[in-house]
Amino acid sequence: MPYRAPVNDFRFLMDHVVGFDQVAATDHFAETTPDMTQAILAEAAKMSEDIIAPLNRAGDLHPAHLENGIVRTSPGFADGYNAIAEGGWIGMSASQESGGLGLPMTLTTTVNEMLAGACLALQLSPLMTQGQIEALEHHASDMIKALYLPKLISGEWSGTMNLTEPQAGSDVGALRTKAEPNGDGTYAITGQKIYISWADNDFTQNVCHLVLARLPDGVPGTKGISLFMVPKLIPDADGNPGAQNDLRVVSLEHKMGLHGSPTAVMEYSGATGWLVGEEHGGMAAMFTMMNNARLGVATQGVGIAEAALQHALAYAQDRKQGKASCSGAIFEHADVRRMLTTMKADTYAARAITLMNAVAIDMARATGSAEWQARAAFLTPISKAFCTDVGCEVASVGIQVHGGMGFIEETGAAQYARDVRVATIYEGTNGIQAMDLVARKLMDGGEAAFRILEEIENGAEAAKATHPALAEAVWQAAESLRETTEWLVAQSDLSARFAGAVPYLRAFARVLGGHVHLASAIKGDAGRTRLATFYIKRMLPEHVGLLVHAREGATDLMAITADDLAA
Amino acid sequence: MPYRAPVNDFRFLMDHVVGFDQVAATDHFAETTPDMTQAILAEAAKMSEDIIAPLNRAGDLHPAHLENGIVRTSPGFADGYNAIAEGGWIGMSASQESGGLGLPMTLTTTVNEMLAGACLALQLSPLMTQGQIEALEHHASDMIKALYLPKLISGEWSGTMNLTEPQAGSDVGALRTKAEPNGDGTYAITGQKIYISWADNDFTQNVCHLVLARLPDGVPGTKGISLFMVPKLIPDADGNPGAQNDLRVVSLEHKMGLHGSPTAVMEYSGATGWLVGEEHGGMAAMFTMMNNARLGVATQGVGIAEAALQHALAYAQDRKQGKASCSGAIFEHADVRRMLTTMKADTYAARAITLMNAVAIDMARATGSAEWQARAAFLTPISKAFCTDVGCEVASVGIQVHGGMGFIEETGAAQYARDVRVATIYEGTNGIQAMDLVARKLMDGGEAAFRILEEIENGAEAAKATHPALAEAVWQAAESLRETTEWLVAQSDLSARFAGAVPYLRAFARVLGGHVHLASAIKGDAGRTRLATFYIKRMLPEHVGLLVHAREGATDLMAITADDLAA
Repeated sequence: MPYRAPVNDFRFLMDHVVGFDQVAATDHFAETTPDMTQAILAEAAKMSEDIIAPLNRAGDLHPAHLENGIVRTSPGFADGYNAIAEGGWIGMSASQESGGLGLPMTLTTTVNEMLAGACLALQLSPLMTQGQIEALEHHASDMIKALYLPKLISGEWSGTMNLTEPQAGSDVGALRTKAEPNGDGTYAITGQKIYISWADNDFTQNVCHLVLARLPDGVPGTKGISLFMVPKLIPDADGNPGAQNDLRVVSLEHKMGLHGSPTAVMEYSGATGWLVGEEHGGMAAMFTMMNNARLGVATQGVGIAEAALQHALAYAQDRKQGKASCSGAIFEHADVRRMLTTMKADTYAARAITLMNAVAIDMARATGSAEWQARAAFLTPISKAFCTDVGCEVASVGIQVHGGMGFIEETGAAQYARDVRVATIYEGTNGIQAMDLVARKLMDGGEAAFRILEEIENGAEAAKATHPALAEAVWQAAESLRETTEWLVAQSDLSARFAGAVPYLRAFARVLGGHVHLASAIKGDAGRTRLATFYIKRMLPEHVGLLVHAREGATDLMAITADDLAA
Repeated sequence: MPYRAPVNDFRFLMDHVVGFDQVAATDHFAETTPDMTQAILAEAAKMSEDIIAPLNRAGDLHPAHLENGIVRTSPGFADGYNAIAEGGWIGMSASQESGGLGLPMTLTTTVNEMLAGACLALQLSPLMTQGQIEALEHHASDMIKALYLPKLISGEWSGTMNLTEPQAGSDVGALRTKAEPNGDGTYAITGQKIYISWADNDFTQNVCHLVLARLPDGVPGTKGISLFMVPKLIPDADGNPGAQNDLRVVSLEHKMGLHGSPTAVMEYSGATGWLVGEEHGGMAAMFTMMNNARLGVATQGVGIAEAALQHALAYAQDRKQGKASCSGAIFEHADVRRMLTTMKADTYAARAITLMNAVAIDMARATGSAEWQARAAFLTPISKAFCTDVGCEVASVGIQVHGGMGFIEETGAAQYARDVRVATIYEGTNGIQAMDLVARKLMDGGEAAFRILEEIENGAEAAKATHPALAEAVWQAAESLRETTEWLVAQSDLSARFAGAVPYLRAFARVLGGHVHLASAIKGDAGRTRLATFYIKRMLPEHVGLLVHAREGATDLMAITADDLAA
């Protein structure tokens, strides 16, 4: 079953649901004409379908591996990477002064989703580079920008993020990697980092590591952390890759999925690094990088969901089975149709949320508006957590649609589920996303949240004439969500918010999903109304139970002891 | 992290929640004294913990494989199997006249869960044999019983089920395997069967295949299917394994998980078989075998859930991380506690449901009561589908608790998720279970369902004095479930029931979970009340959205076209 890029849905959502016209109307993005948008979608779709998707299975069967300390990538991955780089896709949203195309993040989001649907393991490499580009654009010195950005944007060099250490995962502040001044403006970086995605490869000329480390005068915790550029090969006077730096890939992990993407333990033994941003200001730079990457990881969830849906739909239309009374393809069975429609309705909602998020990022960049900025910041944890959960759930339902064949690796359904599983974990676990949402992202007293809720309610009001039942359901859901949001904002004890953070985030996404489906029903054909009807009548009611859970507070929960949970 | 058998929970549930005292009070099970129950739990726990659990990882790393047509099993599996067989655990519920111990299915259910939690891949072998024993006890001739049952019960020989063919999965009636009379009372079996669990091994003296096939005068569909015993080695005049039969393992599948369990394609080339049950009566025998196996598969879900919970809990207590304000183990974080408590609360509810189901089976056997029989039949699809869903969900949350380590295979968390994934598919997919529930199991006009609902309501009434809030929540949930059950029973169009079958089944299980947690709160210590409070306040409300979905009917759903779902 070949992957087909969902260009129609991208177009429809951009044109009718997520307000991409606002982005295109800004001076900043004046070059983004409808023709250009169309051409980008078509070209990225063609590359994803024809060049990248055929690599997916080989990545699973022939994992990246370490050969005498050098990472050898899966068959075809080098060609696939080169196609992505040569297409200009890696730095498409990077600024033009740095050598990028300065295109909206909304378009990058569509491209990232297509690449993820085609081959998640490979997509992760340019995604890491994109995060690095954005971090450097915002925080690096002119010298570093000039040296690194053009090479990263062209894809000649690739980028990684080095945050995690064995004792410092979600709690980055516990890191121990040291940075000591060499006296010449550079630093000696020493320490071990783990879970480094695409820490090395055999297809870029250099690998640029952004490494969080502590200066000698760095205080304990996150406030004493600085960020350093630590290239694998130290650029020579002409900016070309020169001497090998004092760093190495110690080992690669044996993972549940995403075998085509090497995940390394890295050892830095006094490696030469350059400060990026302020001393002790590493967290700010890291957040820039992570926020970008979080939306990117959200596209991984959506991409896999789309691929798993297509795979299952093709199987269900092809597979003949059933009693005489309902012979034909299993697509004719009500429960199979329920599974497939659930897959589609959630994939569609998740995609719309990533695009709403990207539009907010673009508008913030184009206008400098704090309101757009707050909206983007609010939507980011929702995108990351909900879309990756959807990726896992849809891939699992895809296995189920296949019946016994779903458990057999040759079918391909299982690979989607194994590959996407990590997306709920990396770039901040989904629990961390939810805590970010209810704490930091509600620090404005809920202003950003209430603005979105108002938009949902206005949308429902406007739909009442043509789609009264659907509109009423979405309006009611938004009201319930508003009440819970008010309750959360009123909790000064953060643990009361944290106890309900995950169900709250999911409820918010569920209601946003109702909003975008309702908008689709209004603007789209009968098929989009059927899909919206399914989502709003059958899936949206999930928010009721979630919001009850979200408002329960922490007292009962924190009274649970380990003994209560033991065998 | 070593596996610990949840003996305390078994004891508590049997003594206080699921009414095992009724079973022990029957004449039929008069030998099942409290001392014997205690001894069985303790012995099975010891074997599971000390002998079986250590095999689990080797089964994953060193899959069963085919060597010159012979299945070689994973390291240690032969010893593990022998321990299970020698302990008398395989035939513990088989009748004493056949050589079994005649013990209640409730006890077998606890043992099956412990074995599943210790090593799912190995547990599946005796589970298949148990299903075969029950099918033979009910349907085979005295000659076949005398020849096969003692060997199956002792574990010297093992049993398999051969139902599925490439074109006949959930739709067994489409099978093409032929059975032609040899004129001497035996039959020549010819055809290909797929997905045969434990089709061969290198630790039993013989493998006995129960094969569904069609006699020359068998009509198309399920009514023309007969069941045959087709041993790998044909017993000689003394009943010892003799000549090789005309059957072979063609290949083993490469699966997402459960690598230690060989899943085979079998080829029968005129193999000698003996009729089991009536000509064209194969489906009845198959249902006996499947119903037994369905509860057995439910224990797989619970066993893996328990193992995954223990694994995650140990990690969360050990793993130090966190800001200065809340330093210590990650168990102290509200969201981690939420995840672990969710795991425990659902594992506990699922376990209680399997035991309720087993008690009903035992009471039906002991009393011959149609009411107990109907209750067992009603609970079986709920056990199978809910408990295997819980197995998958809890294993996935277990990965999440581990953060990045959860995605690394060496941790072991991923193996639970990969292994248990098939349990929602085999022995009838969970969709098939739900359809069975809303169609066949409501054919009595809902009598069995309403009897259970009444029991839940009575339980809630009785709890109102001591646990008013919890009791009220359970009572309300039961009322909502009753209304939806009435609605379903009133739908003469089965497709309206099928469209909501899966959410209905889950809602029923959710409410049953509320019932057993409430009973635990009344009878147990403060820890059980805390757990019940978590479940009833935070997890039970899920039923609201599920019941809305369950009542939506088929019209909107079946109007969805494949085009609506396409990219």
